[in-house]
Formats: sequence, structure tokens, C-alpha cells
Amino acid sequence: MPSDDFVVTPWHVEGDIDYEKLIKRFGTGKISAQLLARITRITGEDHFMLRRGVFFSHREMDRILDDYEKGNKFFLYTGRGPSGRTHIGHLVPWVFAKWLQEKFDTNMYFQLTDDEKFFSKHNLTLEDTKKFALENALDFIALGFDPKKTKIIINTSNIQALYPIAAQVAKKINFSNTKATFGFTNETNLGMIFYTSLQSAPCFIEDKPVLIPLGVDQDPHFRLTRDIAPKIGRPKPALLHNIMIPALEGPGGKMSASDGDGTVFTTDAPDVVKKKINRHAFSGGRPDLEQHRRLGGNPDIDVSFQYLRIFFEPDDDKLKTIYDDYKSGEMLSGELKAILIEKMNNFLATHQKNREKARDRVDEFLFENK
Amino acid sequence: MPSDDFVVTPWHVEGDIDYEKLIKRFGTGKISAQLLARITRITGEDHFMLRRGVFFSHREMDRILDDYEKGNKFFLYTGRGPSGRTHIGHLVPWVFAKWLQEKFDTNMYFQLTDDEKFFSKHNLTLEDTKKFALENALDFIALGFDPKKTKIIINTSNIQALYPIAAQVAKKINFSNTKATFGFTNETNLGMIFYTSLQSAPCFIEDKPVLIPLGVDQDPHFRLTRDIAPKIGRPKPALLHNIMIPALEGPGGKMSASDGDGTVFTTDAPDVVKKKINRHAFSGGRPDLEQHRRLGGNPDIDVSFQYLRIFFEPDDDKLKTIYDDYKSGEMLSGELKAILIEKMNNFLATHQKNREKARDRVDEFLFENK
Repeated sequence: MPSDDFVVTPWHVEGDIDYEKLIKRFGTGKISAQLLARITRITGEDHFMLRRGVFFSHREMDRILDDYEKGNKFFLYTGRGPSGRTHIGHLVPWVFAKWLQEKFDTNMYFQLTDDEKFFSKHNLTLEDTKKFALENALDFIALGFDPKKTKIIINTSNIQALYPIAAQVAKKINFSNTKATFGFTNETNLGMIFYTSLQSAPCFIEDKPVLIPLGVDQDPHFRLTRDIAPKIGRPKPALLHNIMIPALEGPGGKMSASDGDGTVFTTDAPDVVKKKINRHAFSGGRPDLEQHRRLGGNPDIDVSFQYLRIFFEPDDDKLKTIYDDYKSGEMLSGELKAILIEKMNNFLATHQKNREKARDRVDEFLFENK
Repeated sequence: MPSDDFVVTPWHVEGDIDYEKLIKRFGTGKISAQLLARITRITGEDHFMLRRGVFFSHREMDRILDDYEKGNKFFLYTGRGPSGRTHIGHLVPWVFAKWLQEKFDTNMYFQLTDDEKFFSKHNLTLEDTKKFALENALDFIALGFDPKKTKIIINTSNIQALYPIAAQVAKKINFSNTKATFGFTNETNLGMIFYTSLQSAPCFIEDKPVLIPLGVDQDPHFRLTRDIAPKIGRPKPALLHNIMIPALEGPGGKMSASDGDGTVFTTDAPDVVKKKINRHAFSGGRPDLEQHRRLGGNPDIDVSFQYLRIFFEPDDDKLKTIYDDYKSGEMLSGELKAILIEKMNNFLATHQKNREKARDRVDEFLFENK
């Protein structure tokens, strides 16, 4: 990999991602000022994740809005590959999806791809990934979704409903397509090769167009889905892409559920959160106090600041004050981290309560095979 | 294809098959006189399909018998790809499977691979293949299986039970393996690539070894299954292979359900059977009566005689008389055909009655997802 380059696929994210370049590479559309204004007009709210470019790219969001303004509804679909515990980064698209669901009054499907993680992780059994799926579901439910409008799909539990749809997709995709899209080789296992059909299936679960808010690393799956949709007489899925949430250790990669210390899990206790951020959060500060006061910190590479920007400080004025204070050297790295720790622990205190309550409500959310 | 060559794969059978060569090519074992004698001793019956080499080859039948004689039971599994109506040739392994089931007192699973035929046939929808599956099931049930010991699996109906097993298999097979085994290319669709995992799944549906009586063209699937079985801690499936049943038009190919005139379907009326055999059954007779009387016919290439040998005349003495009379020229082609027509129509009269009765009994046989 050249030093100025980066890799973004559903199974491998590496390097310092240039999102402008990624838009060109993937052939997606940037969320323009015009599109942003249109979403704000329709929803009546200027969501900070859109305004700040956390969701930065899309495919055919315009069409979804055209249809919506003509009175034609869509539904939402997103998901998670259950390879481990839920971390803070996973919540970003889910919180945004919830906002979309409320503003557009839509149904939503949340897919937990236990089979995919079994196929892609050498050391995980299907029992492991199913267990993680049920744990991850608690975090999703904890965000306050309405079970009447929100269904959780677990691939191995709902294969009876998914497979006939996936089969229509699978017949129209060949091995060359997956080589070109995912970089599969002759050594790729059959589960991985077939799997993209199953990630496509929820796109066609209702007889309406679908909008998918998701991490941009998942875009390749839906490029294939969009290619085959007209061949099976169905509308192409529209997408809204979020950036990769940085790991605590720094930019250039997404936060990974398999990497303990560099990751804040939703079940971490306040002192664990504090320790992880203080020890591991990549800092934009200077090597010593004197230099920091004199030269100032760099909030643009500081992971604590990025977490505030992406998730924990929706107020632009407050965020700007933090940005300016850190940049001027008035705010120290420890002070910046303390702000994040407090906000994160406040969030997690509520989240963890809701997460425990969710244990009794899982059944209300599980998709039922007809 | 060189003129002395032939092709045998699950999706393509072509040329004049040399079964001795095929045993070497596939690396299977010939059913030896010794193995034949052992089966006869254990079952108390010398089945004509074994004696006449209709079942000619095996994999590890010895092991199944070793285990059986130690008191360890096995189960049976066979199936059909529902690409059309059932023809006479399909019944051969099913009738033999029923005999095995009775002699060894085993459970049996019959898999109807509606998804596979959807993936492999450009012009068939999943609704088409599911419809054929249910029609084919009637023919299977009509043969008199016991529903307490016999379950019919339809892939799209039973994917909930099959997929978790298929996933274990799919993780252990890569695209190279399917290229080598089936000749798949970069243009093969994802459904076809994954499919072999689903044909493997019933091998592991009970916690016992499995014996699979089946057409030798299906052997490649189970070569893969046998390779991966130890990797997932399960016994290798054992196999008993039958020859390809010739099409009416002649040897060199198996009877095909998609080829109307050259095929006797189980639902054909007596006059249709008569017409098909008289018009289309490849004859070993001479061009005119005088030559036939003088030089005799060739029963070894005569399709009507082959049908008697394979299925409709279990009595060796009677078969020998027909063979000798035809070979000497005493019996004419029309007379030989008349024997087959009568036997086939007698069989079909009973079969068609049982087939209609089976309509009310399908539910008793359908495998239920747990």
C-alpha cells in the first residue's frame, strides 16, 4: 500500500482515509450544501451528523426525497456484523437511523449478520457470533426504537425469510463480480462468496424503496445490489454513508470490536472509560505543557475532540469553544479528555440502564419468519 | 470432447460413459463380487439392481456394513433436482433406497433441491422449481415409504434447518475446490457456487453415519463433503452409485426431464407410453425383417431391453430368455417393445393411483424445521 493510499472494504479498513478521494473511488455523491438544505427543510431539523459531515456521502438520496415529497414512503435498513461487543462507534449510524425513522415515520430493519462473521473470522463459531448478535441487539434496542416499526433480523434465525430473496440476487451475481467488488480470490470460502446476497436481501423485504444509513466500508455490498436490482424488477437501494469512526489510538482505521484497550465498549464501567481515554486516546497535544501553551494543540487529529464532534457534543457553539481553546493552547489535553470522559460516562449511564431493560424486550423486536 | 471420451458432472452428462473408466476417474470402488455377497448375506436378498450392476460403484460401503454388523445404525439420504416432471429413470435409485431402508431398518431423507435448479436453469423461477418439487414428491411418496421414517426436505422450505449445517461446510470449501470439482468459472453465479454446501447439509442432519444411494453424476458433491467431514468432526458420507439411466433415444446421456418426447414421465397415459416407446426407443434391431431374423438383434444397445434389465424385469431367467430370443432374431424389435410397454404400463397404472393418493399425504412426509 503506497503511503498516501488507503483501503476500505467491508472486511478491511486501513490507512488514513481521504474521504474526497473515496467518493471518487466508489463513485458516490457528496452530500452537497443543497442536499443538506433540502433534508433540513423536509425534516425541520439540521442534524449535526449531516452538518458536520459525519454522514458525508450518498447514493440517490435525492430520489428518495423526490418520492417522499410525492407521498411515496420508503423504509430504512441498517445492520451490524456481530464479531464482538458493541462499541461506541457502532452507535453512530444507529442513532442517526433513529432520527431518520422519526422524521420520516418509516419502518426499519436491523440486520445482525452472524453468518458473515462466522465465515470471515477463523476463530469464531456460529454459536459465538449468534451470542454476540443477541448482545449487540440490546444496544440497538436501548436507543429507544419503537418495536411496532422496528424489526431485528438475525441471519441464521431468519434465513427462512431471507434465502428466497437472496436466491434471486445470487442468480444474478457471478464470481467475477465479487472478485472485482471485494477482492475475493480462489481461496475465499463459499460462505463469504454467497454472503453478499444475504446482505442484499433486506433491501427487498418490503415492496417500497429502501434507504440505508451505514458505514462507507459497507458500500461495496450495495453497489452489487444496485447493479442487480433492475434485473429482478426492484428499486435500487439508496444509501447515506458515514465516515469510519476512529479507534482511540488514532485516525487511520475504524474502531474495532476485537481490539480491547483501544475501544470503548457500551458496557464499560466509568473508571474503565476514564482509564481507556486517558491512556489510549490519541492526542493532538504537544509533548510538554510549555510547548502546548505556546503552540496550541491540534483538535483536527485529536481523537477525543473527534468523538465530541461525531457524537457527544451536538451543540456547535460549545464545540467551537472547545476547538478554539484547544487550538490556542488554553485547554490542555487532559482537560479535553476530561470533557469527553464526562459526556461519554453520562451517556453510558443512561444507555447501560436501557440496555438492561432491553433484555426483557428482545422478543418484541425479533423479526418473525412467515 | 474426444470421441472416446465422456463428461459426467452434476449438471452435464455427455458421451458414451465407460463405467470402468469412470470408477478410475472418480476414484470410487467397484462393487466387487465379495461386497455383493456380503450385502446379500446381511440383507438376505440378492437385489437385481446390484447383481446386474445398475448400482455399480461405491465409497466406503464396507465401513457402513462393518458398523452395522457391530450394531451401529446409519441413515439414508437421496434426492432429486426438481427441474421438471418425474420420469421413469428417477425412480431407479428411489426404489433401491426403499429396499435398503426396509432391509436395514433406517431413517431416510429425500432432498428436493428447488434452489439448485433455479440457480442452474436460466428459464426457471423459484416458483417453478418449488412446484416441480411438490409434484416430484408425489412420485416418491407413491413408492410406499413409511412417513414415520422418511422425511422430504425441500431446500427453500427447510433452509432454516439446513443453513446452519451448510454454513459449517461452506466455511471449509473455497472457490478453487469448486473449480476443480465442478469446473466452475468466474462466470458461475453465487447460488451455484454456494449450493454444494446445501447438498452436503443432510449428510449431517442426524448424529449417525449416512449412506447415499444416488446417480453417479452427483458423486462430485459428496467428494467435497467427504473431504471436509473430518474438518467439522463428522463421519464421511458413504455412497452407492447407480449408472445413468439412458434416454429413450439411446445410450450416451441420462434420461432428461426437460426433453419431452424422449422421456417417459410417470404421469404419461398408456397410449402415450406406447407411442413414445414405439417411436423413440432406440432399437438394437436390424433395418429389415429378413436381416433381423438372419443376424439377430443387439440387446446390449437396445434401450427397451435396458429398461427391462434396469427396472422392469427383476427375474433373471425371464430376462435371459428375452435376451437370447432377441439376439437370435427370434424376437423382433416390435415384440421386445411390446413387452416393455406392457410392463411399464402395468407399473404406471399402480403408480399413478398411489401418486394421486399421495396428494393427501404430503404433509406427513414434509420435514419440519425445529
